[in-house]
Amino acid sequence: MSYSIRGTILQTPDPGRLEVLRDHVVTVDDAGVITDVGPDIGERATDLVMLSGTVLLPGLIDTHIHAPQWPQLGTGLDLSLQRWLLEYTFPLEARYSDLAFAENVWESMVPALLSRATTTAVYHSSVHEPATLALAETCARYGQRAFVGRVAMDERDVAPEWYRDGDAADAVAASHRSIEAIRAVPGGLVEPIVTPRFIPACTDAALEGLGELARATGVRVQTHCSESDWEHRYVLNRCGRTDTEALSSFGLVTDHTVLAHATHLTGDDRHIIGAAGAGVSHCPLSNAYFANAVFPAKASLECGLRVGLGTDIAGGSEASMLAQCHYAVTASRLLEEGVDAGRTTRRGVADSRLDVPAAFWMATGGGADLLGIPAGLLAPGRVFDAFAVDIGPTSTIGVHGEWDDWDRIFEKIVRRASPSDITTVWVNGRVVSPAG
Amino acid sequence: MSYSIRGTILQTPDPGRLEVLRDHVVTVDDAGVITDVGPDIGERATDLVMLSGTVLLPGLIDTHIHAPQWPQLGTGLDLSLQRWLLEYTFPLEARYSDLAFAENVWESMVPALLSRATTTAVYHSSVHEPATLALAETCARYGQRAFVGRVAMDERDVAPEWYRDGDAADAVAASHRSIEAIRAVPGGLVEPIVTPRFIPACTDAALEGLGELARATGVRVQTHCSESDWEHRYVLNRCGRTDTEALSSFGLVTDHTVLAHATHLTGDDRHIIGAAGAGVSHCPLSNAYFANAVFPAKASLECGLRVGLGTDIAGGSEASMLAQCHYAVTASRLLEEGVDAGRTTRRGVADSRLDVPAAFWMATGGGADLLGIPAGLLAPGRVFDAFAVDIGPTSTIGVHGEWDDWDRIFEKIVRRASPSDITTVWVNGRVVSPAG
Repeated sequence: MSYSIRGTILQTPDPGRLEVLRDHVVTVDDAGVITDVGPDIGERATDLVMLSGTVLLPGLIDTHIHAPQWPQLGTGLDLSLQRWLLEYTFPLEARYSDLAFAENVWESMVPALLSRATTTAVYHSSVHEPATLALAETCARYGQRAFVGRVAMDERDVAPEWYRDGDAADAVAASHRSIEAIRAVPGGLVEPIVTPRFIPACTDAALEGLGELARATGVRVQTHCSESDWEHRYVLNRCGRTDTEALSSFGLVTDHTVLAHATHLTGDDRHIIGAAGAGVSHCPLSNAYFANAVFPAKASLECGLRVGLGTDIAGGSEASMLAQCHYAVTASRLLEEGVDAGRTTRRGVADSRLDVPAAFWMATGGGADLLGIPAGLLAPGRVFDAFAVDIGPTSTIGVHGEWDDWDRIFEKIVRRASPSDITTVWVNGRVVSPAG
Repeated sequence: MSYSIRGTILQTPDPGRLEVLRDHVVTVDDAGVITDVGPDIGERATDLVMLSGTVLLPGLIDTHIHAPQWPQLGTGLDLSLQRWLLEYTFPLEARYSDLAFAENVWESMVPALLSRATTTAVYHSSVHEPATLALAETCARYGQRAFVGRVAMDERDVAPEWYRDGDAADAVAASHRSIEAIRAVPGGLVEPIVTPRFIPACTDAALEGLGELARATGVRVQTHCSESDWEHRYVLNRCGRTDTEALSSFGLVTDHTVLAHATHLTGDDRHIIGAAGAGVSHCPLSNAYFANAVFPAKASLECGLRVGLGTDIAGGSEASMLAQCHYAVTASRLLEEGVDAGRTTRRGVADSRLDVPAAFWMATGGGADLLGIPAGLLAPGRVFDAFAVDIGPTSTIGVHGEWDDWDRIFEKIVRRASPSDITTVWVNGRVVSPAG
């Protein structure tokens, strides 16, 4: 049965603009698709009237998250990427051979993300098929839209023997089985995604096989690309070309491919990514720890690249996508200004600053565009993935009615809202948080 | 009557080290001073036993906060400092001529800061004496340790005619009256502080008079110093010397003077500050927006400079001092790594990274050292300013018992604790949050 909700909507139809729809009515059909958004002119039947101190925003899309790293969120970030992987991350991910351990983590993580209004998540899982299937099932059960990828990694020089695929054939076969298993999960919210961890952790044979698997199954691809100086140079040395060029040659840069980080792209790389219809998951907080530079988000958006935002749990220590918007703005300012006061000329990169609407757009419409899903905006034909935020006197946002216009309220929500201010979250028209 | 509390303490006796005191008993005397901290060997009477999923940490010291900017927290950060001051900040601060407006803000702000474990705050108030006195009285009533400074600003080229002191004599006389009024506030927790806003907003005559006022009254001084390229160059042009040199010549760099930001210091400036026993309030988030560079916190600590942390509300959008620790670590990584991937050499400043204990030290012991107050560590002779954090299964911190050692738990608390995880806050031995 269709229903309608009346309230004030704050959203970003494009990276440059906040749209305020005061007292509008959103009508949602049986399938969870929005059929109408219009001003409340008294002719629409309204099933739910939002409280006056509450606003409605499109759901947040986390385009890069390592699900098995949830228990280590917030730790180990003083280490180098190599030590972080070998001492923290790989030993933890290896534990997901234990299905009960995995299920316990997913049961805590998925509701925690939904309560932060992450209505869509693009997950790297571990190498384990049962744990990966359990993640997809948990998302389906809690009602989170998700792309779930079994991680493939078979390169013996980088992946330790206690946590890797046996060989390239194993990597491809297990990935194939995982795709089939996830496709059988009911509910229509969860899709598989081909997931070579990154070139350094995969043999050429595995990368070729996974590219062929993506083509044959029509499944999207995600991987890391030119995240750090180390990764970028490793691929140049091994493949004799850039990360993007090499991934492309393996058939792994296709329509809606999610390339995480992409901090060290060349101009040619950007052209390859744009021409393929692929894009970047920008993970601003993680990048401060592991990327050796700030991704030039503004310039990338201006040249038409698809860019979404990601938490990169646990490379970033923060699960909230609203916080990632704040980090994206803050990192863009540091890119523009530079960091070294001892340098008097060319300290930063001019014209790099993002504003809050641009960051929110990356977390909503940008992510939807990157993935090719009809989400990210409350408009007819899009799915009703949304969240309500309490901006009343008991919220932590601190709205001062006489002082704040809608631009300021929006800025306060993005920069200051805590999970306790998010009162309701919907995915595909259904309330998913608080859990019913 | 003295009392004792048993629990596990996490704290940083110096910038390089986390100290874990498992199941220790803290004894506090009538005056709120710690008389003993020792292992629970069964000989100590214990009045309060902390819950097993709770840890105890020293209270947080916010060394730079503009109290009247509380209503604008989280907004306007896309603007330049000049536009931000003239369009957002000064019009808001001017409203504190209305005492009822001021009292309403203080009533919301002080408990909000206490609930985030800010046990000591160093406030810039507005130019208004009644609003400033009301701030001191509100701190005393809620039990927050505070330094409260009436802002002096009389320079007509920078301060607008609708928000400034009449002239230099007015600025000094009003500051003097404000000191006397705050000294008369009972309770012993609140002290006045001489507060020229910054050199650009003050005439030489006012700065001279305020330096003399600080000397005559024995009151500490706070001001901004070399925050941005603009401020640094403005002072060089007007005074023919650096901000630090000029402030020093006015008698405004004295023992325990708080110089906010200090991003663009010279080596000589650091020597002047160190020799005077003054120090820096490092405001890492605000600096990303208004400082044009990252303060070199690690190098400053290593050369013995006193350094505390500040929120710089509302130049930073975040009221939590734990979050500022996280920003200090993150900013230090960007300083070390640099930001511009297009630069292949000398991208950042080597050896600049802070770890989490160093940042927490700045927020506790470093702030106490900067101010010259016996706080910042749970040890005999120090005041019992402290907070308890819930690390149990219902907290947002996400501790995984089998996985996390105390180093990881500490890192998770600093990076991930939300106000709802802070269960109790004490100042001077008295519970101040939740309000009794």
